[in-house]
Amino acid sequence: MMDEERSNEKCESVTLSLMSEAVSAPTECEKRVCVFGTGDMGRSLGLRLLQAGYSVMFGSRRPQSCNFLPNGAQVLSHAEAAQAAHLIFIAVQREHYDFLVPLAYHLKGKVLVDLSNNLKKNQYPEANAEYLQSLVPEAEVVKGFNTLSAWALQNGPSDANRQVYICGDRAEAKQVVLAVATKLGFSALDRGSLSASRELEDFPLQLFPLWRLPMRIAVGLTAFFFFYLLIREILYAYITQGKDISFRIMVSLANRVCPIVSLIMLALCYLPGVLASFLQLYRGTKYRRFPDWLDRWMLCRKQLGLLALGFACLHVLYTLIIPIRSVVQNGTNEFITSRAWHSDSYLSFGILGFGLYVLLGITSLPSVSNALSWREFSFVQSKLGHLTLLLCTIHTYLYGGKRFLSASLYNWYTPPGYMLCLVLPSVVLLLKLLLVTPCVDRNITRIRQGWEKGADQRNSKNNKTLVL
Amino acid sequence: MMDEERSNEKCESVTLSLMSEAVSAPTECEKRVCVFGTGDMGRSLGLRLLQAGYSVMFGSRRPQSCNFLPNGAQVLSHAEAAQAAHLIFIAVQREHYDFLVPLAYHLKGKVLVDLSNNLKKNQYPEANAEYLQSLVPEAEVVKGFNTLSAWALQNGPSDANRQVYICGDRAEAKQVVLAVATKLGFSALDRGSLSASRELEDFPLQLFPLWRLPMRIAVGLTAFFFFYLLIREILYAYITQGKDISFRIMVSLANRVCPIVSLIMLALCYLPGVLASFLQLYRGTKYRRFPDWLDRWMLCRKQLGLLALGFACLHVLYTLIIPIRSVVQNGTNEFITSRAWHSDSYLSFGILGFGLYVLLGITSLPSVSNALSWREFSFVQSKLGHLTLLLCTIHTYLYGGKRFLSASLYNWYTPPGYMLCLVLPSVVLLLKLLLVTPCVDRNITRIRQGWEKGADQRNSKNNKTLVL
Amino acid sequence: MMDEERSNEKCESVTLSLMSEAVSAPTECEKRVCVFGTGDMGRSLGLRLLQAGYSVMFGSRRPQSCNFLPNGAQVLSHAEAAQAAHLIFIAVQREHYDFLVPLAYHLKGKVLVDLSNNLKKNQYPEANAEYLQSLVPEAEVVKGFNTLSAWALQNGPSDANRQVYICGDRAEAKQVVLAVATKLGFSALDRGSLSASRELEDFPLQLFPLWRLPMRIAVGLTAFFFFYLLIREILYAYITQGKDISFRIMVSLANRVCPIVSLIMLALCYLPGVLASFLQLYRGTKYRRFPDWLDRWMLCRKQLGLLALGFACLHVLYTLIIPIRSVVQNGTNEFITSRAWHSDSYLSFGILGFGLYVLLGITSLPSVSNALSWREFSFVQSKLGHLTLLLCTIHTYLYGGKRFLSASLYNWYTPPGYMLCLVLPSVVLLLKLLLVTPCVDRNITRIRQGWEKGADQRNSKNNKTLVL
Repeated sequence: MMDEERSNEKCESVTLSLMSEAVSAPTECEKRVCVFGTGDMGRSLGLRLLQAGYSVMFGSRRPQSCNFLPNGAQVLSHAEAAQAAHLIFIAVQREHYDFLVPLAYHLKGKVLVDLSNNLKKNQYPEANAEYLQSLVPEAEVVKGFNTLSAWALQNGPSDANRQVYICGDRAEAKQVVLAVATKLGFSALDRGSLSASRELEDFPLQLFPLWRLPMRIAVGLTAFFFFYLLIREILYAYITQGKDISFRIMVSLANRVCPIVSLIMLALCYLPGVLASFLQLYRGTKYRRFPDWLDRWMLCRKQLGLLALGFACLHVLYTLIIPIRSVVQNGTNEFITSRAWHSDSYLSFGILGFGLYVLLGITSLPSVSNALSWREFSFVQSKLGHLTLLLCTIHTYLYGGKRFLSASLYNWYTPPGYMLCLVLPSVVLLLKLLLVTPCVDRNITRIRQGWEKGADQRNSKNNKTLVL
Repeated sequence: MMDEERSNEKCESVTLSLMSEAVSAPTECEKRVCVFGTGDMGRSLGLRLLQAGYSVMFGSRRPQSCNFLPNGAQVLSHAEAAQAAHLIFIAVQREHYDFLVPLAYHLKGKVLVDLSNNLKKNQYPEANAEYLQSLVPEAEVVKGFNTLSAWALQNGPSDANRQVYICGDRAEAKQVVLAVATKLGFSALDRGSLSASRELEDFPLQLFPLWRLPMRIAVGLTAFFFFYLLIREILYAYITQGKDISFRIMVSLANRVCPIVSLIMLALCYLPGVLASFLQLYRGTKYRRFPDWLDRWMLCRKQLGLLALGFACLHVLYTLIIPIRSVVQNGTNEFITSRAWHSDSYLSFGILGFGLYVLLGITSLPSVSNALSWREFSFVQSKLGHLTLLLCTIHTYLYGGKRFLSASLYNWYTPPGYMLCLVLPSVVLLLKLLLVTPCVDRNITRIRQGWEKGADQRNSKNNKTLVL
Repeated sequence: MMDEERSNEKCESVTLSLMSEAVSAPTECEKRVCVFGTGDMGRSLGLRLLQAGYSVMFGSRRPQSCNFLPNGAQVLSHAEAAQAAHLIFIAVQREHYDFLVPLAYHLKGKVLVDLSNNLKKNQYPEANAEYLQSLVPEAEVVKGFNTLSAWALQNGPSDANRQVYICGDRAEAKQVVLAVATKLGFSALDRGSLSASRELEDFPLQLFPLWRLPMRIAVGLTAFFFFYLLIREILYAYITQGKDISFRIMVSLANRVCPIVSLIMLALCYLPGVLASFLQLYRGTKYRRFPDWLDRWMLCRKQLGLLALGFACLHVLYTLIIPIRSVVQNGTNEFITSRAWHSDSYLSFGILGFGLYVLLGITSLPSVSNALSWREFSFVQSKLGHLTLLLCTIHTYLYGGKRFLSASLYNWYTPPGYMLCLVLPSVVLLLKLLLVTPCVDRNITRIRQGWEKGADQRNSKNNKTLVL
């Protein structure tokens, strides 16, 4: 106890000296950063840097007439600011980069961070950062921070916009930028040499790249089934019976197209996983890459599923709105128990399927899926997902009921829409059923744990180390 | 390859010595922190500090009788603990700060972090941290961490409660606290001098500050339209025809008020953006601040939209519940195609509008909006948002249908509710239409890219640098 | 100003030398890490380490035939890799750990991080990390990172999977691993000595542990009320009147069970809070632990509430689907104002209750609840929560209406389901009402602020410091 106390006594002076050292640090050169450009982006970045303890110098052509700059920042001419700091953020539009050429002497060996973005892809022959490097060849240009908005900088990083990407040709320069990013609370990822900067500049311009393929599929399916049902129901009634039931387009037809598209897209969401399993089974290893088309398909499963959920929601709303009319039309209805069982089961499967569907949608929210362990996530998305597909498929079969064989439904020799949409889900469910039979399941599990076909023989020679 | 190997050999010893240095660090004085107070907050903070590798000393009046303290912490008297560490967290209620006065000698030069909160705003004449500073003037008081709950401290920082705010008069003291915050996994923001501490102490007391204005608007609109419709429908029927239809208050009236309020609030959500664009057009620059009222309005657009969505959801539920009754009342209905077209379009626009509405709501969830790039977010909130407003407005126009000119609806010379609620959305849509016409759009785009009216002339003289 | 300038001049050379120092650092030994195992996990970890600036060496039995390894990593034999780095990640399955035995000499004093997981709980007698330590007793084994998936490592940490847990017997070794985790953007929590590693290895295997109890309660309640209502309605009708109404199972019965289970579970969600308050009142202090069963109950309130919400959603869907049938059956209905008031109020309370219910569900999404201050969260979950319970209980009372006293409902002397389900919510609401009466509320508030029964007397002697 005495020792404890003594060391405590001693500590006071030590800490104080440690403190003063720690304190002197931020005033040193390395703590000085310079921002060229006093627009939204420059000001927000400057503010953030000040808050993180850096001393910030703004470089401006007209240092006297700069407004709204954060308190505590110095405003200097470009040349003065360039001399004062080793790290310079260029928050200026590309068209005006030529003002840097006369400063080349001061920028020699300095780290220049190119923050710029373009208004559209391929606006210029080379990336902005490469253009900057060509203007001041003796500076060390790093591309980075351009995926952040001024707003994100001002409000501090949160979840997804915590990530910043940097690239550049000199590792040392990247280290410096990386350190600043970490200090500002961002998590920086090195994307390689400066030649990657075009890719980084295209980031903020992209508009839902992963949604593009699923969206096209959805639009294609919707258009096909819309015209298919338009012809075989409304046009058919008009031509063969002379009845004008065109008003059905708005609700009845929409309510047929939605569930059809939804079910097909749900099946498309689970098909690639099943195909991948069969491919692994066939190849007998998990260590070979899937073909590109399968990879791309698997990457957009979440988007396929969410679009399918959207169509299912519309289907539910349309269905719930319809009674207003359907009941009005036929006021009487004989009531037979078996028929009641049939129609009630149909409704009940639909409701339960939709409930699970929504649950899947909720667990795919970023904040929910992040809170799940890997096993929990795969339980929900695989087990519950296939259960949803099963319930929705049964719902559709029950909708068809005994009508499958009734010839009267085959207007112009075309099958009704719900039959067409049952093909894919049934195939997916059958394949999945095959995969969960004990003997196939055992094989696939072995493969996923790293087992390889033919590796047993090799193993005896090589004593190969299985890896996680 | 040989060199590689040799440097590896050498490395072993070097690393070990590096290691031992690295290892000795956390046992040094700077790694010692002290917590005064052994309540929920103190204990949770102590636990978190221990987990982050600090050695923690609790200061207590009765060191012998402290329970539930985290394993590995020392419990000392206040005086001993104060001597042992340079950084002292004060997790004690303000009423009991006077116990620090006799310790003033030991606290000289120490960094005291005031964690306290009050039960209501303006409970005391000065902020707790300023009071603390006045009690021990030779200590360096830093306000901070008070926005965290004991629960958040125990469970580690997650998304939103990752942010802590600190303020204080000495930069060195703030640096020390900032370093500890970073070590604990928080991201600390410096809010300036100790005089900001009242603001920080008011943080945990605030109750949905951004929701207040939208909430008041919602309540006001609801009350107005409730009484307006009560008078012109239920009272009117009672006075002119002697019919008691008061029961309609619960469902029918509610189902008129909800969509009206929802549509008006949705329009109010998009109006400020349109106004801001026109103001920028008029001023010819984006570099002048908006008037305060417009700024405040724009800041609560999200809340306006979400409240509008809430009312829309209630409207949908009420509408879906109503068939139970409406069908019962009028059992027959002639069926004319044009009328069917009309009513079905009305329903279909409503459903599609509601679908988009919900989509907007989902993308405003923090975890979803964080995952969007800036361009994606603005696409959803601006493009899809105005589309939603358009669909909902058409839905309401179709609801009115041909009844606009029918005099019988103007009970007591008042227009029906749906007409009143159409005014604002129509104005917003018209203004937006103006903004997207090519010639106006070109101007506004130029301004948003930094162009200024009259700057071209100035430019020729000044060669002004346009900024991001 | 001159001084400023001069110090700037000087700065340039200083920074450059600082830079080169800073730059040389990452190439040093401490920046070298080694990964044994070239599977998914090893490769992803290696890539992440490279991106964070480490130089990574993979150890492999067949260095020549390793594919898919990240660019920039070296591949060496196990022995070479072991020599080259002080920190070694073991990304190999436990079954193959014996390859480490011959390397024991090279691993002496090295930090080995065991990343492994098992396929099921209690697969082996001792934890993998303890087994590893027993194989290479002179190495310093740290368990950690095993809760991360290869996917999370590749895509960078986001919200929930930002946390990694480590445990180990030597503090120095843990410090090293902790530093690497921080560098990779994770926030590491020390879980104690190596004996905790079994717990860490069980983490990824757990499947919704907090949902288990609420799920069992939900299944139990559902089963009980399903059979209860099956017997007293469908079986009763069949036996006493010979009517087969079994088809009602699918929709009508489901629509009775869902609201009953939902209301009971909502009451169960608020009961423990009320009980805890009474316990604190009785004990006169908040500083004593609650009994274990109450603690466990309180921890799963969120899950109880969300399950209750799920049942409520199903109830709403079933109710909205039913009109299709109910209207068809009885085409006429006399319309009395008082009855209309009654049924409309019943519907309206249901809708409002459900709206609040959904709001509670939304605020319990991680990203939303994280964005709320503590006061806001407790306002929503406590005030709005009890209001929801109140509205739903009134909804159920109104459903019963005047039927409570009608003997005809008591088939076989059993009360209808809705009566049974009203007991618990009524009790919770009554108890809550007691708690918010001014005199009780004052006491409970005092206790929550740290007041203790009998402490006033003690205080006068001890001058006890109240704590936050």
